[in-house]
Amino acid sequence: MLDALKAALPERVSTASSDLEAHSHDEGYPARTLPLAVVYAQSLDEVQKALAWARDTGTPVVPFGAGTSLEGQLLPPGPALSLDLSRMNRVLEVRPEDFMATVEPGLSREALNASLKGTGLFFPVDPGANASLGGMASTNASGTTTLRYGGMRPNVLALQVVLASGEVLELGRGVRKTSAGYDLKDLFIGAEGTLGIITRLTLKLHPLPAQVHTLRVFFEHLEAAAEAAYTLLGSGLPLARLELLDELSLRSINRYLGRDYPEQPALFVEFHSSTGEALEAESQLAVGLMREAGAVAVAAAKTQEERSAQWEARHQLYWAQVAQHPGCRFMITDTAVPISQMPALVRYAQHLLAELGLSGSILGHVGDGNFHTLVAVDEQGYPQAERYAMGLVEKALELGGTSTGEHGVGLRKKKYLAQEHGPALEWMGRLKQLFDPHGLLNPGKIV
Amino acid sequence: MLDALKAALPERVSTASSDLEAHSHDEGYPARTLPLAVVYAQSLDEVQKALAWARDTGTPVVPFGAGTSLEGQLLPPGPALSLDLSRMNRVLEVRPEDFMATVEPGLSREALNASLKGTGLFFPVDPGANASLGGMASTNASGTTTLRYGGMRPNVLALQVVLASGEVLELGRGVRKTSAGYDLKDLFIGAEGTLGIITRLTLKLHPLPAQVHTLRVFFEHLEAAAEAAYTLLGSGLPLARLELLDELSLRSINRYLGRDYPEQPALFVEFHSSTGEALEAESQLAVGLMREAGAVAVAAAKTQEERSAQWEARHQLYWAQVAQHPGCRFMITDTAVPISQMPALVRYAQHLLAELGLSGSILGHVGDGNFHTLVAVDEQGYPQAERYAMGLVEKALELGGTSTGEHGVGLRKKKYLAQEHGPALEWMGRLKQLFDPHGLLNPGKIV
Ligand SMILES: Cc1cc2nc3c(=O)[nH]c(=O)nc-3n(C[C@H](O)[C@H](O)[C@H](O)COP(=O)(O)OP(=O)(O)OC[C@H]3O[C@@H](n4cnc5c(N)ncnc54)[C@H](O)[C@@H]3O)c2cc1C
Ligand SMILES: Cc1cc2nc3c(=O)[nH]c(=O)nc-3n(C[C@H](O)[C@H](O)[C@H](O)COP(=O)(O)OP(=O)(O)OC[C@H]3O[C@@H](n4cnc5c(N)ncnc54)[C@H](O)[C@@H]3O)c2cc1C
Repeated sequence: MLDALKAALPERVSTASSDLEAHSHDEGYPARTLPLAVVYAQSLDEVQKALAWARDTGTPVVPFGAGTSLEGQLLPPGPALSLDLSRMNRVLEVRPEDFMATVEPGLSREALNASLKGTGLFFPVDPGANASLGGMASTNASGTTTLRYGGMRPNVLALQVVLASGEVLELGRGVRKTSAGYDLKDLFIGAEGTLGIITRLTLKLHPLPAQVHTLRVFFEHLEAAAEAAYTLLGSGLPLARLELLDELSLRSINRYLGRDYPEQPALFVEFHSSTGEALEAESQLAVGLMREAGAVAVAAAKTQEERSAQWEARHQLYWAQVAQHPGCRFMITDTAVPISQMPALVRYAQHLLAELGLSGSILGHVGDGNFHTLVAVDEQGYPQAERYAMGLVEKALELGGTSTGEHGVGLRKKKYLAQEHGPALEWMGRLKQLFDPHGLLNPGKIV
Repeated sequence: MLDALKAALPERVSTASSDLEAHSHDEGYPARTLPLAVVYAQSLDEVQKALAWARDTGTPVVPFGAGTSLEGQLLPPGPALSLDLSRMNRVLEVRPEDFMATVEPGLSREALNASLKGTGLFFPVDPGANASLGGMASTNASGTTTLRYGGMRPNVLALQVVLASGEVLELGRGVRKTSAGYDLKDLFIGAEGTLGIITRLTLKLHPLPAQVHTLRVFFEHLEAAAEAAYTLLGSGLPLARLELLDELSLRSINRYLGRDYPEQPALFVEFHSSTGEALEAESQLAVGLMREAGAVAVAAAKTQEERSAQWEARHQLYWAQVAQHPGCRFMITDTAVPISQMPALVRYAQHLLAELGLSGSILGHVGDGNFHTLVAVDEQGYPQAERYAMGLVEKALELGGTSTGEHGVGLRKKKYLAQEHGPALEWMGRLKQLFDPHGLLNPGKIV
């Protein structure tokens, strides 16, 4: 059976055990299943050939970007083809005059931004891993700057996708606005590879901010930090980032990266200003507001290095925890609630952790009502961590929130979708049936 | 046949000729067809009853919001029921602490903002008519502040919709971020009533800007104004509005509203700043940039009254033209292109107007690459105006643009969708078939 695949795609198919192992899991879901083979596609045509073989042989196909997803999105459902897109990683076109770039799906967000050096532009969506842009579109990823620039949805203007049948569709348009018909582009964003394979993306770029102002603001209690975040949200200040970190997070950062940040609940805040005077006035206003809201210490990152160091600390938090818990498994939760419910959910999370005898650090995109808990446990402790994650989702749904703010559904969140969507879930199933009637594309995920 | 409808919906059904006439057309498409009857629904239950009758009798249903659409969206396709939602106009809930409001679909955007007085919040999407929020969602409307706050898509968090079958779906969630499954909400946004009836919307609200800075900047040539708009887009200034107006537009404003603005091509610009000092610095920067870009005059609107007067002028432009061309028909074009192509398309528009012997004023959301032409013609002149509109769409598509930036497809833009979407258009047809298999909902529009 694989002979036909190898004949159709010479030098693209691997059954080496290291390749199979690397494609048997994602970054966060505990189960593993080896795929039958891995195809490293390098072009649209090769994606179509792999799909043709899958149709001929009835073999499921799991698209694979950078492999950093967390909810079981990449777990092969038994014998399947892992379709690795990481070698389709070219920047096809940068049009600075249109604030736009067209790229292949395997390109990483860091590589894209590196290629934009000198244009004065950047692509803002920055999940805490160096994910691929196709994978980011497929999970509807977001990041620390989503508050200001939005997540993937508004920043992906157009997609090229290949359906299970091999048919190629161009969805959306390289313009900032259109009302021309049904929005198919957004149907494929967040679909986790279950409706089609993304083979090209047209992305919206943004001018680099002229003036950046970065603060670390510390509080006595986590809830006070969450409440202060509010004040900032209502202030009209040009907020670009608003991240919450608990004392455990700060402790990890200090140990792992050798920092000496106060080990107290904190907000990491960034403003993008247009002139030096504006920045000066805005930072005074921000500091004043934070002091009134009970901040016990405020530090500004004055230089580019200091700012990079601060955001590096935020982005490295997961790895800091991994380093400090050798041999442990990690559970990363990902709920979002209406923003006024953030303090309540944070309180509940702390209570539930204690009740279940777990320790976990809480951090998150508080401006979006979305936070994570990193829980480290040993093998036997994992079921307990799962209980925690489940309890948190149930509470979030009760508070009007969602089972996943940004990490997606995969296998882990499937069981909550009926409660979250009601009858709309059946319609999601019908859409899957329409676009992929034989269930070839990442079957068992989402619906 | 109508007896059953009247029995099911006492006091909601009208066949009065004035009602039929008012529901026989929209604001911009020349044709008229009287509906069979108008139902003024006041609740979800009444919408379901109207749909039940439509299914029983095989009668098409055309949802009707404020009736301000422009592309034939509201034209009854022969004997049909006009389902008027304007009496479902309650504000159901405002949750300032969540920056959120839940409303019925017939509420107008102005009524919503009036009801938000005192909360410090506003809903930003402001098409040039006082449209209903259900209609605005259904056309994916946008407005002068879309540059900063986005159009309907990112500002509608959740929808309740009723399908042709009468089934009620809740789509999306009242949170700022979610990756929980397929994005059905955005499928219904921009669907022009062809997939379901919107019966409730949960909207994202924004804090009123602390400091507002409004400019009128004048140029020798329209292209120079378009080029200057660019400079601003790349500047990182906190732009909220960036509107282009040609000299004809200024002349209309002066005559209709008794202003004395220079009758030259202009940019109407607004920044939202956070402090007085920031505003001061930002306006200096903006004025400097505009002078460098060739501005011949710059005026600032210093007071709230002056600012309101300036934006009123922009919003009244259509009515100004109507008043100045009694008995005329209007053609309003609506193309969008990648922003670097704006000057080229504006140049083409001027050339084509001259070639066809038409006069029209050019104005638009230049920050989004989207502009309109208002062309006034008498009855016999209309085919010529149609030729102009068609030529402009063809040019926009050639430049990588879209046939409609914000007014939608209706009947007028249908013929361009094959070119704009290619094979994806067939999939739009399949979605229509899936959600509305008997073609009851606004048949003949979009697909
Ligand atoms: C330390 C850490 C921090 C993280 N922080 C964040 C965060 O802040 N925000 C956030 O949103 N996520 C975060 N994530 C999760 C993860 O990075 C995102 O989900 C990311 O978008 C996954 O991209 P990827 O390229 O790794 O995709 P993969 O994991 O390879 O795939 C993800 C899904 O997309 C599908 N897919 C991949 N490529 C394609 C394609 N071309 N066409 C169709 N389907 C495709 C796959 O089948 C799978 O279902 C984090 C993960 C880690 C490990
Ligand atoms: C002077 C003028 C200026 C304008 N400026 C702009 C502008 O700047 N930006 C812009 O985007 N548009 C503009 N428009 C166009 C128009 O205002 C928008 O398209 C608006 O969104 C239409 O809203 P409405 O409530 O009038 O909807 P209607 O015209 O009543 O209906 C529009 C479409 O939506 C459907 N529909 C209405 N309500 C529902 C519902 N509850 N459920 C399902 N379907 C429904 C209808 O069937 C129809 O297909 C302008 C129009 C005029 C006359």
